[in-house]
Amino acid sequence: MHSWVDGLPADALTLQSRGLAYGDGLFETIAVRAGRPSLLEYHLERLALGCQHLAISADHGLIRDELCRYASLLGDGVLKLIVTRGDSQRGYAPAAGVAPRRILQGNPLPTYPAGHAEQGVRLFDCQTRLAEQPLLAGLKHLNRLEQVLARAEWQDAAHAEGLMRDVSGRIIEGVYSNLFLVRDGQLQTADLSRCGVAGVMRAALLDHARDAAIAVQITDLSLQDLQQADEVFVCNSVYGIWPVQAFTSLNWPPGPLTRKLQAIARTLLDA
Amino acid sequence: MHSWVDGLPADALTLQSRGLAYGDGLFETIAVRAGRPSLLEYHLERLALGCQHLAISADHGLIRDELCRYASLLGDGVLKLIVTRGDSQRGYAPAAGVAPRRILQGNPLPTYPAGHAEQGVRLFDCQTRLAEQPLLAGLKHLNRLEQVLARAEWQDAAHAEGLMRDVSGRIIEGVYSNLFLVRDGQLQTADLSRCGVAGVMRAALLDHARDAAIAVQITDLSLQDLQQADEVFVCNSVYGIWPVQAFTSLNWPPGPLTRKLQAIARTLLDA
Repeated sequence: MHSWVDGLPADALTLQSRGLAYGDGLFETIAVRAGRPSLLEYHLERLALGCQHLAISADHGLIRDELCRYASLLGDGVLKLIVTRGDSQRGYAPAAGVAPRRILQGNPLPTYPAGHAEQGVRLFDCQTRLAEQPLLAGLKHLNRLEQVLARAEWQDAAHAEGLMRDVSGRIIEGVYSNLFLVRDGQLQTADLSRCGVAGVMRAALLDHARDAAIAVQITDLSLQDLQQADEVFVCNSVYGIWPVQAFTSLNWPPGPLTRKLQAIARTLLDA
Repeated sequence: MHSWVDGLPADALTLQSRGLAYGDGLFETIAVRAGRPSLLEYHLERLALGCQHLAISADHGLIRDELCRYASLLGDGVLKLIVTRGDSQRGYAPAAGVAPRRILQGNPLPTYPAGHAEQGVRLFDCQTRLAEQPLLAGLKHLNRLEQVLARAEWQDAAHAEGLMRDVSGRIIEGVYSNLFLVRDGQLQTADLSRCGVAGVMRAALLDHARDAAIAVQITDLSLQDLQQADEVFVCNSVYGIWPVQAFTSLNWPPGPLTRKLQAIARTLLDA
């Protein structure tokens, strides 16, 4: 499906875009089923938070309308929304009254091997560490060179994801997923106040856990926590949940809480 | 002057650009006088180093040729060169055989108040800190949200630049300049192995200092170093050198080594 820029079909962007010049913007990657964007409110909420942190004055009502119209035409697929601060001449300071731009791109739903969801995935041990930048932590902004470098570390199909630590060695997330551990029936996931992307599937699972009275710890995670975990899984808003079966010499069977949440994630994506 | 993409006039870039999606690329901002790019070898060297670090297999001979042709047509101005990894579908892993893209943009030479070079400038005290990421430190890559946030901290014309520290409090650089201190006739500038942009004017001045037997310390700089400095200046490849006359409650007169190097910088830009 043709992309849209500011609500109109387009396949190109001006070279003056601050998205290109500085990565000055945000994005969302949204699963669309039968014309409906999954986890829409979570995506819009994270985008609004990102715009607030970066002082990008986007029209969120208009974004919602366009996104829903585009999704209904896309049918089934992955919708990528990019919001840039807008266009400007050279220089970090934007021109007064710069107008944010909205870009919508449609892609087919990715087809992953069925084994990823069934038997689980193996995580690559990424050497690229995440820098600690509290001002940008949690946001899905366009400055993603760390993820590009981390994803370039492995080429083999045996690893479906890579595990990223921060520069201090804490376990944070996958390259394109968030990570959860299960220990003694309790969920653990990394605190994302210094780095990392606060995924919308992570947010939806945390909300579900609260409603279902599953204990959750949002905390600093070490390699030792990983070693002591009973179950490990990764999640994102496109594939839902994949059990993690292996990382370096560690192994886990897909466990009961992972399976339970996997079904919840499927429901959330199909809702 | 019209921009070029891959050697041809263009004013737009495909929405598939990894430059837009992830800031997956590098740039150089080059002063051009009478059709000649200033500090050309320094710019090309830094670009090549960046491409090597990011594993972008650009054709550097072609880049040099295009850049020189563009500069000769531009006459006087600022040439911005962007090299992206290329275009690809959604996902951090680029397609096999992805071809880097070369973007050239011409802008007029900026006109700064004459006082900046004569009496010196006042530095704003930026609260945005630079994250420590050794894998990207020194490179002029397209992930520049920290600079965008820092530059947005002040609007008044009384501050021509802002001083940035890293998350550990070390004094690193200006938002769009490098910083030098002078103490007892010796130059000091920040070690940029954890963060910061290794500016080409900084590199050229370091080479000059070596040739002229001026002692240089490339080291971690603290607020105390700044307080104890006899002279302070900022530099970049467009304006050369500006003495720093004030930062918070600190004041410095433009000193003799600053004036000497300012003349050198002018020569380097006009060469």
